[in-house]
Amino acid sequence: MDVLICTAKEQDEWCETLAACLPEAQVHAGPDAPACDYAVLWKPPAAVFAHQPRLKALFSLGAGVDGLLAMPALPRDVPLVRIEDCGMAAQMIEYALYVALRRFRRFAEYADAQSEGRWAPRGLRMREDFQIGVLGLGVLGSAVANALAGFGFAVSGWSRTPKSIEGIDCVHGSAGLDVLLARSEVLLVLLPLTGDTEGLLGRELLAQLPDGAALANLSRGEIVDDEALLEVLDSGQIAEAFLDVFHREPLPRDHRYWTHPRVRITPHVAALTPYSAACSQVAEKIRGFERGESISGIVDRARGY
Amino acid sequence: MDVLICTAKEQDEWCETLAACLPEAQVHAGPDAPACDYAVLWKPPAAVFAHQPRLKALFSLGAGVDGLLAMPALPRDVPLVRIEDCGMAAQMIEYALYVALRRFRRFAEYADAQSEGRWAPRGLRMREDFQIGVLGLGVLGSAVANALAGFGFAVSGWSRTPKSIEGIDCVHGSAGLDVLLARSEVLLVLLPLTGDTEGLLGRELLAQLPDGAALANLSRGEIVDDEALLEVLDSGQIAEAFLDVFHREPLPRDHRYWTHPRVRITPHVAALTPYSAACSQVAEKIRGFERGESISGIVDRARGY
Repeated sequence: MDVLICTAKEQDEWCETLAACLPEAQVHAGPDAPACDYAVLWKPPAAVFAHQPRLKALFSLGAGVDGLLAMPALPRDVPLVRIEDCGMAAQMIEYALYVALRRFRRFAEYADAQSEGRWAPRGLRMREDFQIGVLGLGVLGSAVANALAGFGFAVSGWSRTPKSIEGIDCVHGSAGLDVLLARSEVLLVLLPLTGDTEGLLGRELLAQLPDGAALANLSRGEIVDDEALLEVLDSGQIAEAFLDVFHREPLPRDHRYWTHPRVRITPHVAALTPYSAACSQVAEKIRGFERGESISGIVDRARGY
Repeated sequence: MDVLICTAKEQDEWCETLAACLPEAQVHAGPDAPACDYAVLWKPPAAVFAHQPRLKALFSLGAGVDGLLAMPALPRDVPLVRIEDCGMAAQMIEYALYVALRRFRRFAEYADAQSEGRWAPRGLRMREDFQIGVLGLGVLGSAVANALAGFGFAVSGWSRTPKSIEGIDCVHGSAGLDVLLARSEVLLVLLPLTGDTEGLLGRELLAQLPDGAALANLSRGEIVDDEALLEVLDSGQIAEAFLDVFHREPLPRDHRYWTHPRVRITPHVAALTPYSAACSQVAEKIRGFERGESISGIVDRARGY
């Protein structure tokens, strides 16, 4: 069995870890590898598929597969499998909890008071009165929603299709989105990038958030309309935006986000794929394919995730 | 039964809540009340004890009793009882977890990178490798240590006398303090203010923290030597100090902390005493006294807490 691994960076480390997890295979670092049975990919060049006539399955090392799906040369009739959790949910929870605590305990407000030399204590509030909205209830979104609800916050979750999660007020559809936006003091974006979600958060929807809300985009930059977000940041309607993902990455040097006082940039690090857990998961799934078993995490290409 | 309540602010709210929790008593708002059986206090004026010859017990509405103990007129032979937890532990946990997540996930580092227009992703690290030191393992300190250890961080705790808490590396004494300081990327101060802890964190001990450590003082300003802290903040050895408490409060307008780029000031709000939980606890303890039962939370005046 031959397995191709092709990643945009740290290719040697990935190759070594996968080889250790899959000793029965020949692991080849791409893109110029011989014909292989499986390909394990993270932002590969277009040429990676040029000499791969016999691939049985493709694995994405990221949770989001919008980049791979947009490649014209992506083989059509081969299952595409995405990484599921693999330690990424725990990282998303850390980021989301940081944002929630920063807003709930008014740390940004106290920083503003400090910059003006003001000693301005505010009263106690209750976790159960603090409304957090989670957009996207997939593997990562539902893990984040559950963790925040477990901490005692009031969590609403929005998904394309109806879902039911204990302890989360689950809404769906356009009407459900309106309800969620109107009450969310913190809005967490954990949606996949698809035709439906691209540009979803534009002027109209952002205007529905309560005054002084915060937004954290932890999935894909393209879901947010940058100009619309900058407007509500300028007006102060959105008090703080935590942005981990952008239309172009690295974020271009002249982008207004870099210098906006209400924007907190992190460089696409909200959830990093850990080598060993990801390679173990891929190795197990490759073995499953070889045994003819059904595999979880296969992307529905029409749906886009 | 007559109960005096005397607080530095919000006296009416406190009085009303205590009266509701203790309907069998006459509750009087101080300091000019008739002679009472019990006094419930938060930063009272010195005169509060002038006409109180028959007090059976004193209750502090704060967890720290250094202020009351420093009052010359404080009746000597009357038990002094402090509030235990009452929702304050949950608030301390929120603050501590915010600080821990901000450091662990490098949010301050990314803010610095943003201010320089740098896109500089850093690698993944493991919670179990992130060392947090908690000074003080009383009701609040041990709750914070347990919560952070439960989240997966590596937590050490220091106390005056030897303690043992599952999942926490408990140390004590001067040698134990050295061990804890040398490894703590985050140092959380949750000590009572006593003769032993006043000025404890001076030049010598702060120098033992690892380069780039963070400090959060959540108990009493007097435990930290301000000049020594400013030196290690200026040098960058301490990357960020979260200060909720100060030698003088409100923090004087001309104090260097206000404008120091590595200082995050909050106005003594880390843990606020909630009216209803605190008044219920005091009411229960007053009933216990009346029935001649033994009561928890009685301050050892020699020890100072």
